[in-house]
Amino acid sequence: MSSIRTDRARAALRDAGVAALMCGPGADLRYLTGYHALPLERMTLLVVTPDAEPFLVAPHLERPRAEAFTSGIELVTFGETDDPVALVSSRLGAVHAPIAVGDRLWAMFVLRLQAAFDRASFVPASTIMKVLRIRKDDAEIDALARSGAAADRVAALIAASSVAGKRERDVSRWISDALIAEGLEQVNFAIVAAGPNAASPHHEPGDRVIQAGDALVCDFGGTLDGYCSDITRTFHVGDPPHEFVQLFGVLHEAQEAGVNAVKPGVTAESVDAAAREVIAAAGYGEYFIHRTGHGIGLEEHEEPYIVAGNTEPLEPGMAFSVEPGIYIPGTFGARIEDIVVCTDGSGRRLNNASRDLKVIA
Amino acid sequence: MSSIRTDRARAALRDAGVAALMCGPGADLRYLTGYHALPLERMTLLVVTPDAEPFLVAPHLERPRAEAFTSGIELVTFGETDDPVALVSSRLGAVHAPIAVGDRLWAMFVLRLQAAFDRASFVPASTIMKVLRIRKDDAEIDALARSGAAADRVAALIAASSVAGKRERDVSRWISDALIAEGLEQVNFAIVAAGPNAASPHHEPGDRVIQAGDALVCDFGGTLDGYCSDITRTFHVGDPPHEFVQLFGVLHEAQEAGVNAVKPGVTAESVDAAAREVIAAAGYGEYFIHRTGHGIGLEEHEEPYIVAGNTEPLEPGMAFSVEPGIYIPGTFGARIEDIVVCTDGSGRRLNNASRDLKVIA
Repeated sequence: MSSIRTDRARAALRDAGVAALMCGPGADLRYLTGYHALPLERMTLLVVTPDAEPFLVAPHLERPRAEAFTSGIELVTFGETDDPVALVSSRLGAVHAPIAVGDRLWAMFVLRLQAAFDRASFVPASTIMKVLRIRKDDAEIDALARSGAAADRVAALIAASSVAGKRERDVSRWISDALIAEGLEQVNFAIVAAGPNAASPHHEPGDRVIQAGDALVCDFGGTLDGYCSDITRTFHVGDPPHEFVQLFGVLHEAQEAGVNAVKPGVTAESVDAAAREVIAAAGYGEYFIHRTGHGIGLEEHEEPYIVAGNTEPLEPGMAFSVEPGIYIPGTFGARIEDIVVCTDGSGRRLNNASRDLKVIA
Repeated sequence: MSSIRTDRARAALRDAGVAALMCGPGADLRYLTGYHALPLERMTLLVVTPDAEPFLVAPHLERPRAEAFTSGIELVTFGETDDPVALVSSRLGAVHAPIAVGDRLWAMFVLRLQAAFDRASFVPASTIMKVLRIRKDDAEIDALARSGAAADRVAALIAASSVAGKRERDVSRWISDALIAEGLEQVNFAIVAAGPNAASPHHEPGDRVIQAGDALVCDFGGTLDGYCSDITRTFHVGDPPHEFVQLFGVLHEAQEAGVNAVKPGVTAESVDAAAREVIAAAGYGEYFIHRTGHGIGLEEHEEPYIVAGNTEPLEPGMAFSVEPGIYIPGTFGARIEDIVVCTDGSGRRLNNASRDLKVIA
């Protein structure tokens, strides 16, 4: 039996002239069926076609998990020595139109599907799924808001804590525990970058002992009911030098400008430009080395990307980060990030923890 | 500059007539360079060819992370609006021989590489990498042993603990914390399956409150220096019924038989058969619904798979799980798992926590 979402996917396939959508474990599968499958070398694949009921191919030993999530979708399981790709091709027969495969489906499965369907061309599933997933409905926004609120509470805990003398990795672990305690079901990442490490946007928390004089960038998030949070707050351990206060002031203004630029009809790249112009005007342009943001939902990073060149107009329901950063190599860095959802009239922040520069011990 | 490992990969490419190896974030990349890259929609790709020095394509904002790991390998970074695939194809020119792409490289990158290299066929990188990675060297075995010992210590903690009245998800979280406390750098999974849930091999720990009378399967592991652990122990909360004691006795014997079958020259499938025969002879054959094991190393699941049909002979240095299970739907289940490394003469267990049926409160 189809759901409303698989019905919409089937209609999109028909409109696009695509013969089949094949999704492995990940966001598309969860969006369409609710099933949160394990990414394994044993293939799990949802197959949606315009003209037949969808079915889910899964390893036999995953049957209890799969059944719990996918009521109404036919479940086709295979044993440890069976070939699941042959199973898919025997059901679909020869396919001549394009097949859409999940953007994150592993190459080992893509190559086998290509060999089995050698008359078909292959396109990324985002060509079909993007339109379905990019505008969040009320329930999705509610989940994003609750996920964001949990992250906000942890940001407030950090602002009230003392970190000097602790290693980055221990603070990262502490943040992870706090996110779970605040209600997230899973932690996706917890970047803690101190001192010169704060100049690396994706620093991996390590053995550096945090000390007075360090800028401290904390960027963390997880999932709640499958929906992601992602917040960054920058702290300073002990009194900050004048240069850092100045840099932070510019950054704060840039993040405000980015958020204020959000409204329906405005292009994604113009939100990037709004934040970037403030930073460039203050002379820090070369130190803002990444885009301003990324969409968020069942994935931490998804459409729409808030980046130069993305001329897509924002629409109500789109949710994304606004996260400018300024990174001075070898010295320090700072980033402020909120998740923002485009409403009918403006941008609504889903993160509301204080964005001021907090001095902590 | 090449390393010994990239030199071996280059030789393997030359022998196989493969034009290039392209690995994204994951085990192959880490094996070849030490770089533990983030899986992102921004492409990270190591390119190894037989006749030129390898290079790593990475997003500009990952430069600090990448540089810390990949000394000696040329780093080619790209900005947020650049096309990394065009960058790869401009360096390689037209390619007519096969290209090997990482088995877990995302479809979104595979399809773009296929479009850019439209004269080349594509094969999975495991055709090249398997030979390099399947036999662990002494340092790798040492890392697996230390990772396994940390998991052993947590198994002992569970055996001494009290779980009745707690939810599966809370015990799972407690196990995760204990693994970190025992020295793992990352937790990969912590299955806690109580009562009838123990009949689902990959049960996701949920809200079930563990109670007296429950069988309890705990299957957990993480990484240490990148190398994985994976152990399963089965407990019983309160005195077990006779049927469970009987089942467990069969399982214990089957696991012993599997481990004892390990020696060089023996096929992988014969280890599976050794464990399976014990279970089948006792009448539980239909309830052992998965293969006996999987290889382990930088990935939780990798070659060699201990499964019917795998006639590959074991060789010294191969490391894999031996983990028979018996699952009675709706009632209970049990599994015992150790990581075993094939030595010159036999199988050496890397897990040594007690395998007896422990009654816990």
